[in-house]
Amino acid sequence: MATARARTAPFLLVLLATLLCAAAVAASSWDDDREPSRCVRRCEDWPRHQRARCVQECRREEQERERERERERGGHELGRRRGEGSGDERESEGEGEQEQERSRRPYVFGRRSFRRVVRSEQGSVRALRPFHEASKLLRGIRDYRVAVLEANPRSFIVPSHTDAHCIGYVAQGEGVVATIENGERRSYTVKEGDVFVAPAGAVTYLANTDGRRKLVIAKILHTISVPGKFQFFFGAGGKNPESILSSFSKSVQRAAYKTSSERLERLFGKQDKGIIVRASEEQVRELRRHASEGGHAPHWPLPPFGESRGPYSLLDQRPSIANRHGQLYEADARSFRDLADHDVRVSLANISAGSMSAPFYNSRSIKIAYVLDGEGHVEIVCPHLAQGGGESGRRGGRSERWSRRGEEESSEESEEEEEAGQGYRTIRARVSRGTAFVVPVGHPVVEVASRGSNLQIVCFEVQADKNDRVYLAGANNALRKLDGAAKELAFAAPAREVDEVLDAQREQGFLPGPEESEREEERQGRRGRQEREREEEEGRRGRGRREELAETFLRLATGGV
Amino acid sequence: MATARARTAPFLLVLLATLLCAAAVAASSWDDDREPSRCVRRCEDWPRHQRARCVQECRREEQERERERERERGGHELGRRRGEGSGDERESEGEGEQEQERSRRPYVFGRRSFRRVVRSEQGSVRALRPFHEASKLLRGIRDYRVAVLEANPRSFIVPSHTDAHCIGYVAQGEGVVATIENGERRSYTVKEGDVFVAPAGAVTYLANTDGRRKLVIAKILHTISVPGKFQFFFGAGGKNPESILSSFSKSVQRAAYKTSSERLERLFGKQDKGIIVRASEEQVRELRRHASEGGHAPHWPLPPFGESRGPYSLLDQRPSIANRHGQLYEADARSFRDLADHDVRVSLANISAGSMSAPFYNSRSIKIAYVLDGEGHVEIVCPHLAQGGGESGRRGGRSERWSRRGEEESSEESEEEEEAGQGYRTIRARVSRGTAFVVPVGHPVVEVASRGSNLQIVCFEVQADKNDRVYLAGANNALRKLDGAAKELAFAAPAREVDEVLDAQREQGFLPGPEESEREEERQGRRGRQEREREEEEGRRGRGRREELAETFLRLATGGV
Amino acid sequence: MATARARTAPFLLVLLATLLCAAAVAASSWDDDREPSRCVRRCEDWPRHQRARCVQECRREEQERERERERERGGHELGRRRGEGSGDERESEGEGEQEQERSRRPYVFGRRSFRRVVRSEQGSVRALRPFHEASKLLRGIRDYRVAVLEANPRSFIVPSHTDAHCIGYVAQGEGVVATIENGERRSYTVKEGDVFVAPAGAVTYLANTDGRRKLVIAKILHTISVPGKFQFFFGAGGKNPESILSSFSKSVQRAAYKTSSERLERLFGKQDKGIIVRASEEQVRELRRHASEGGHAPHWPLPPFGESRGPYSLLDQRPSIANRHGQLYEADARSFRDLADHDVRVSLANISAGSMSAPFYNSRSIKIAYVLDGEGHVEIVCPHLAQGGGESGRRGGRSERWSRRGEEESSEESEEEEEAGQGYRTIRARVSRGTAFVVPVGHPVVEVASRGSNLQIVCFEVQADKNDRVYLAGANNALRKLDGAAKELAFAAPAREVDEVLDAQREQGFLPGPEESEREEERQGRRGRQEREREEEEGRRGRGRREELAETFLRLATGGV
Repeated sequence: MATARARTAPFLLVLLATLLCAAAVAASSWDDDREPSRCVRRCEDWPRHQRARCVQECRREEQERERERERERGGHELGRRRGEGSGDERESEGEGEQEQERSRRPYVFGRRSFRRVVRSEQGSVRALRPFHEASKLLRGIRDYRVAVLEANPRSFIVPSHTDAHCIGYVAQGEGVVATIENGERRSYTVKEGDVFVAPAGAVTYLANTDGRRKLVIAKILHTISVPGKFQFFFGAGGKNPESILSSFSKSVQRAAYKTSSERLERLFGKQDKGIIVRASEEQVRELRRHASEGGHAPHWPLPPFGESRGPYSLLDQRPSIANRHGQLYEADARSFRDLADHDVRVSLANISAGSMSAPFYNSRSIKIAYVLDGEGHVEIVCPHLAQGGGESGRRGGRSERWSRRGEEESSEESEEEEEAGQGYRTIRARVSRGTAFVVPVGHPVVEVASRGSNLQIVCFEVQADKNDRVYLAGANNALRKLDGAAKELAFAAPAREVDEVLDAQREQGFLPGPEESEREEERQGRRGRQEREREEEEGRRGRGRREELAETFLRLATGGV
Repeated sequence: MATARARTAPFLLVLLATLLCAAAVAASSWDDDREPSRCVRRCEDWPRHQRARCVQECRREEQERERERERERGGHELGRRRGEGSGDERESEGEGEQEQERSRRPYVFGRRSFRRVVRSEQGSVRALRPFHEASKLLRGIRDYRVAVLEANPRSFIVPSHTDAHCIGYVAQGEGVVATIENGERRSYTVKEGDVFVAPAGAVTYLANTDGRRKLVIAKILHTISVPGKFQFFFGAGGKNPESILSSFSKSVQRAAYKTSSERLERLFGKQDKGIIVRASEEQVRELRRHASEGGHAPHWPLPPFGESRGPYSLLDQRPSIANRHGQLYEADARSFRDLADHDVRVSLANISAGSMSAPFYNSRSIKIAYVLDGEGHVEIVCPHLAQGGGESGRRGGRSERWSRRGEEESSEESEEEEEAGQGYRTIRARVSRGTAFVVPVGHPVVEVASRGSNLQIVCFEVQADKNDRVYLAGANNALRKLDGAAKELAFAAPAREVDEVLDAQREQGFLPGPEESEREEERQGRRGRQEREREEEEGRRGRGRREELAETFLRLATGGV
Repeated sequence: MATARARTAPFLLVLLATLLCAAAVAASSWDDDREPSRCVRRCEDWPRHQRARCVQECRREEQERERERERERGGHELGRRRGEGSGDERESEGEGEQEQERSRRPYVFGRRSFRRVVRSEQGSVRALRPFHEASKLLRGIRDYRVAVLEANPRSFIVPSHTDAHCIGYVAQGEGVVATIENGERRSYTVKEGDVFVAPAGAVTYLANTDGRRKLVIAKILHTISVPGKFQFFFGAGGKNPESILSSFSKSVQRAAYKTSSERLERLFGKQDKGIIVRASEEQVRELRRHASEGGHAPHWPLPPFGESRGPYSLLDQRPSIANRHGQLYEADARSFRDLADHDVRVSLANISAGSMSAPFYNSRSIKIAYVLDGEGHVEIVCPHLAQGGGESGRRGGRSERWSRRGEEESSEESEEEEEAGQGYRTIRARVSRGTAFVVPVGHPVVEVASRGSNLQIVCFEVQADKNDRVYLAGANNALRKLDGAAKELAFAAPAREVDEVLDAQREQGFLPGPEESEREEERQGRRGRQEREREEEEGRRGRGRREELAETFLRLATGGV
């Protein structure tokens, strides 16, 4: 016994040192430690070699949150430096920190990473910067942008066209969307859960027809002119938004409209309320009346290829996965023809409070996700390459901690490839309403809802064709399909032992989350009887006392997870 | 009355000041003011806030024209600096001015922007530099190049292949085009108005079979190897053009051709007349005889997909738009199968003297236009983004005048997005035979023919599939399709008033141009009776005297538009 | 006679001077002139204006070989600088030379240009750096990478997925390949000559089932996430390779697998043998047994589009070309459906010892070749543009020798286009097992096998659709299809004379190589009777004595070709 304990001592000391160090750091940083201690406490949950970093990030996150609170309390000066209250994450931080931030979490974009591109008393459109500017690792989706429209009750978004296809998801509220394509107006009502496509160049306008709720639309823009850039053109308009018509020279305007300059100036001189304007009850009624005339087109038989027929209600469909831990609703080119042009799948994941998605990856798609509601966190497993991404890559901004070998960049453009299999970096980020994140091809991800509320995420998956969602846990775990010999060789363990672990989880798609599953365990006694029996059996077959002791101690040291 | 006049005074003073300032600038710059005053005089035609710039540009344009005249009078030294008389716009200007030039009109390329890539006594091929080098805003068409072939009467362009697909339009003359594809020679006669495709890698040769006229072919090259780069390979040849065959090592040549080095050197030592050589009458006759044997293949039934069947005569088709102001002839993948591979539409716009195209934009296509004949001007309406384009973007070359807010470039690559709806910059450029211009997706454009002659423009529209030409004026004006409520809200004016303006123009596609329409008005009395009546009616309904006075004064001040 | 000789003198003097100069250079450089003299001697074989360069390159090549020999004798320090014995060509040379190297032969990559991305006692995966980093001229294939897997007898490559499609060719040995796609495991045996596709995201594992031979697989990776970058993800694994599963936080792992941390740590703590591990005889047998159950699927009827059905044996097919000089085996989307997704053709050229491929080019494809066996050399004919490529282009690294005109780079990005037809630069490179080379669209190439052994090359041709292999010599020479008049005009010679040269070679596809064909000639007497007669006939018809003398002298001077 004594010798066993002695042998475990070094390990435990290291662990304790780590935790104490973390605690010290935490204590020195915050006085109000409502959250920090909790964040730091969670770090023990991480693979051992990532714990120190976890504590560091906890600390940084808290500092940020602190700064934010400060700012909200009245320190808006900083945030306003660039003329908009909204600002941008970068404003509030030193250049150096900003760079670190970006290189550390190249795939997660907080609410403050969005920039307002349309501003109006009645609403706004906010957009993420182009992905390829955010990180070199995202240049594969440089043609796509994320944007969010918010419009006040009974407001009208004036007609415009853009040089990008728009795929929108109605996140909240209800309204009318109208497009003019090939000389035809199509006008349809939309409500929460609807997906719709407004193709590039089509004159498009919307109205929030509800009298009380905001209309919120999350969308991706598939740019077709300058990669990653989109622009709005207002045909109808006046001074604000300025009409493109009034930008032609006067003599051309007169000739084009067979009308005197005076009348034209008068017409183009009136609207100055901005892009999103307040509508009267009657106007809203008229817009809705026209829309109902067009109506929700039936989706079957399918319209001729390439023709738009109005929205597709995700939530009215059968979910492709559904259990008490969550539901997944999906629309792709097969179910919703309007998406065919864009090779995009739109899906909505509704993860029950305290539950999580089973770990999975997309075989071909890059997933662009936007959190609609709730709170939680995501974990994205990235190979080392991910560290070299972001703009800091150019200046060798990879932090020394995480780069294992000195590297010489052979050219400004190159990111050195690491040797395969040498470990991963896990991006772990809290997410809440307004967070966007990207999951690249092949990267395993897990999305965990906090206990307080459901986590709702809308996902736009580009490169959708032939994509396969590959699960790494649960009843449909792809690894269960390995040959017995492959399991033995890959895990260096008897196939039976591998199977026991891979087969234990019977649910699939959505699973009980970490806290939920632990409470459940507790309910069933500290451990399930079955598992204990199995472990005891193993114990009999030579498992030393050492591990058991270590386990017990760990539980005590960390406050009994 | 007096008070009304007093209220209009500030406005008129500003206007007068602007005009006087412009005149002063004009007067100080030129002594021979044949043209300048006219250009400057026209500036009053522009939206008020763009007038000062208009005057500036007038001035610069004139200076350029002046320099050009100088050069032509004997000052060729400058232009010859790079070994070719043709030179390039940039040569004749300081680096600074050049940068400005490019950032101001990123979409228009004068005759001198072309560079000679094939030079010969009997003709030339001139090409525009790659678009993505000209402006970042054009990187969406980086795979395409524009080139123009000119060949003397009875000349022969020796066989070659390139690493780019060639889509050609015969702008003038007649000849024979032959390609060797899949081991088959196809040889066909072409004449003015024909479109043909020579795919990448196909050995291609041409002859001008006419004894008196030049053969002129405008083409775009769709590069498939290095984006935006194309290269010629001469299989048959000698010293000039050097044959690729003679570039293999001698022993390989001997083995490949089972022939002695001496004979090979003799064969490859003869041709030294260049890429375009003079042909005998007999040779031309033989080439034409073979071509007529192959003949103009019928276009129906369609040949198997991907197979080339010779030229397609644009001018022999029914125009898709035709009135006395102009005609539009079009060929796309549906009418001309050879284009299917390239997602390109070729069209010819023939705009009558004094007329203009109705303002329109392309919903998905980027239009690459080349002026075949005539004179006129184009106006392209660009969002602010356009200012940041061009290479000068990197150094913050955006002129202070036009950037509304201080901007920090977040990375070398980034172009800051402006807020939407804050106005546009209109690129206005004179065009004449040899001018190329690009109209990006969604950008409204109008093409105006001068009174002297028809303006003929050949257009290559890339991203042709599902493109929609959206008109912003005329009977098919897309804005007429807006709901009544949408009109009211967008223009902040009664729908009836909006409709009056949008419905006044009854023609469509091509319209009377500015001068033509004004003369017409004059003919019908200073104003049409109908319109006057309407305005009077409005006047009765509360329209103040102020505007009327302003109108009258404006007309007097500007010399009676 | 005397005057004739006098007139030829200048020409001969120049020639002699060149040769003497070359010899002098050669003599001064090497003492052990086993090879050099032979290489230099061959330079006389080159077109006159390229000879001096040829000699230079001979010299440089020898120096390299010398250095390599040195290094192998014990000077490995240099090569090890970066932690791997394999190193990289660049390590052993000064930065300056390296740049030259790359700009001179942007299309050829020696064995040492590969970098190890997977390293293990039981094998390795080596990959070429991304093409667009190697040369700007190769940015058209930036989405593709070349890699080579070598696995010891009875070894197992652990399951992983990548964010790239893999198209593999089994170059040596035999084994089992298994993929898990759409929840199904497909497992098939492969042997030398098989082509197979493992799509992105599919869990894939392999085994070398042979007890004595290495398994070697040459493959291209078609990247779909970050252009030109691929990453491995190991689902099953432990410490080395680290499993992605163990990178999730502990609480997530516990919840996902419904298993205690202890058990998970135990499972993920075992495998530490690396990515390629030794398998037991029994395990190999089990893997093969499962594979044989799945079996080699029949290729007809074709499986539903997009579905993978196992390998395709190139060598079991009828070659598309076959004669005693070589055979070409091909697989494309039509014959092997798995390739359809990737627009890639895979082919194997087996060139008999001493023979060569007929000179040819691809009309649309870019060919990525990897030498499997044998020795020889390739010649690739490149327009001048090729010189500006590579990274040195940025610093104007083009050697003065070969740039004909002073050039101003208009932007950092631009490569000036040369005027067409002004000659080519021929890249000539020795190749042997492990050499990779790229032949861009339209570039003529010839591949010559040394006399010692067959030269075997596997080719991956991207942009395969509608590609045409265009031959420049042999019975199927495309130039033979030119009109008579075109021949006359292009060569400035009577069509009959052109035909005599173009028709002499009766074989096609693969031809006797330089040495072989010369020995053959010798066997038939110094010259074929027929040819001599023809030449005499020509002589009678006015051919001067001058040329004949020159010929004779040349033959004497160069040691009797």
